[in-house]
Amino acid sequence: MNKPNSAPTMKDVAREAGVALGTVSKVINGIPVGESYRIRVEEAIEKLNYRINSYARGLKSNRTYIIAVMVPNLISPFFAKLVNCINKSLAQRGYRMLLCATDYDPEQEQNYVIMAEQQKVDGIICLSYNPNLQVSEGVPLISIDRYFGAHIPCVASDNYGGGALAAQKLVENGCKNLAFLRTGSKLTNEPNKRKDGFINACENLEVPYTLKIVDDGTPYEAFEDFLREHLHDGKLDFDGIFCVTDTLAHQIIHSLRLMGQRVPEDVQVIGFDGIRHFGDHEFTCSTIVQPTEEIAQVCVNMVLEKDEGKSPSLVCLPVTYAYGGTTKK
Amino acid sequence: MNKPNSAPTMKDVAREAGVALGTVSKVINGIPVGESYRIRVEEAIEKLNYRINSYARGLKSNRTYIIAVMVPNLISPFFAKLVNCINKSLAQRGYRMLLCATDYDPEQEQNYVIMAEQQKVDGIICLSYNPNLQVSEGVPLISIDRYFGAHIPCVASDNYGGGALAAQKLVENGCKNLAFLRTGSKLTNEPNKRKDGFINACENLEVPYTLKIVDDGTPYEAFEDFLREHLHDGKLDFDGIFCVTDTLAHQIIHSLRLMGQRVPEDVQVIGFDGIRHFGDHEFTCSTIVQPTEEIAQVCVNMVLEKDEGKSPSLVCLPVTYAYGGTTKK
Repeated sequence: MNKPNSAPTMKDVAREAGVALGTVSKVINGIPVGESYRIRVEEAIEKLNYRINSYARGLKSNRTYIIAVMVPNLISPFFAKLVNCINKSLAQRGYRMLLCATDYDPEQEQNYVIMAEQQKVDGIICLSYNPNLQVSEGVPLISIDRYFGAHIPCVASDNYGGGALAAQKLVENGCKNLAFLRTGSKLTNEPNKRKDGFINACENLEVPYTLKIVDDGTPYEAFEDFLREHLHDGKLDFDGIFCVTDTLAHQIIHSLRLMGQRVPEDVQVIGFDGIRHFGDHEFTCSTIVQPTEEIAQVCVNMVLEKDEGKSPSLVCLPVTYAYGGTTKK
Repeated sequence: MNKPNSAPTMKDVAREAGVALGTVSKVINGIPVGESYRIRVEEAIEKLNYRINSYARGLKSNRTYIIAVMVPNLISPFFAKLVNCINKSLAQRGYRMLLCATDYDPEQEQNYVIMAEQQKVDGIICLSYNPNLQVSEGVPLISIDRYFGAHIPCVASDNYGGGALAAQKLVENGCKNLAFLRTGSKLTNEPNKRKDGFINACENLEVPYTLKIVDDGTPYEAFEDFLREHLHDGKLDFDGIFCVTDTLAHQIIHSLRLMGQRVPEDVQVIGFDGIRHFGDHEFTCSTIVQPTEEIAQVCVNMVLEKDEGKSPSLVCLPVTYAYGGTTKK
């Protein structure tokens, strides 16, 4: 890659404006100079079509106008949509995004944190599954879904409220006996609260419920076994199932149909996330929708303003229910 | 954002090593110095845990180790998977990714090209729908799917071969009368060749075919009207349909079922792209699979090596057929 010889330099601007090089530098970096000097430099920049070198600006202003974003991957539609929304929010604020699809690799995550500590980026927004991530005080880092402690602001959906909403909707739709199915990380994270909200709502509504919770990595067959154990003479013990994600709901619906259960006539199913077919077509199932755009917006606002005062340690944003054909309405 | 006071600087390294600041700079930037000096500097860097500032390195080496990637969005599962694969390939080569989801905005695309011209990034990989994108000679830019001219290498699936493969598979599965449905940009782009390959194969196989091609922005109802026109006494004129994307196939399958047509018993459908439910579950339909990982790998290799010699102007990578339940096998 060769530098085009014709590109004007800061020296050319200084010569054109008839000022010292330092004056040009000050104007570029927003340091006050006499009004007439500023105008001459700006006119010279305009005339020469001089483009400010971001390295030079980065060195002076201590700002890179780049935010690093880390997610496990973009294969998951939820992560992909989240990154899409963060990208848009950053662009609106004049920031660019350095993207790292970590593939759950703690070393890659730690390297990005080090970049932020070295001020190679202005901050980080991350969705990390690494409980050992080391973050210094003072590094602008916003965590999505994982609570690392009061010093690192965490932004998440209102998972507790979402779990309760799922139970409520199933009961409103006539269900008398509920189940909650979950697979996921044992680590403390916000999505764990879906279960707590679900249980609390079931108890308030005085509706019986059963839980089937398995660790990440457990084969899916554990759920099929569970469903079969609760199938008697072709009839399932439950008429309403809340699955911790839309992905799990998709699999469960398939299994139910293979077992001769009609969805939603015999058993109604609600997922969580709000995944749509092909990203923007219909919902894949009835679901509790995460407010992805709002999560992105709040993360961007918080990471850019983190040094301006005390940040909240946890922000939970409201979820909504969407009908997707696997409940009665 | 405050710089941690304790971080060692290049001056600290020079003091520790007992050498001049310029010597440290040379070692960091890979400029030869006496062996004993190099070792002293490296030991000091190690001892102080000094971390090289990428700005300083960027200014000296004229490399940023950043590649900009532009795609319209990450909502489309194909774009999301492509970006995921490019991210992985770049990380393997020690490069980071500046991501721009352009939302089809020509100004954002042009701004990223300017960044590359100014060497704020080492190159660009883009999937652009902007026929007026201005790119100088010498800027390392690799285009996916859109051919801008011989000076800009284009990487794509073998769309022509894929169209032919779809016709072949339908015929192998017993279809006697085919249709091709397409919506898309009128601009010259590689996916247009799906039609040409399909037609060529139909003619070679001597099987009758019908085309329904509508411009981007035409309401989907145009296809429903087309299907209804070809429905006589509950029987469709075609028994095999090739849709230009899996997204269109998904919609067509839904319409066919509403019209009382069984898929695949009455009519078999093949899409294009290789989209899977939730990114990594089963295929959404029988499909011609784009080799996303290979496209990513080739783009990364080409963008990093573009200044090392003559690049090909077009690289087409082989596609494969995958059964996804909407054909007989």
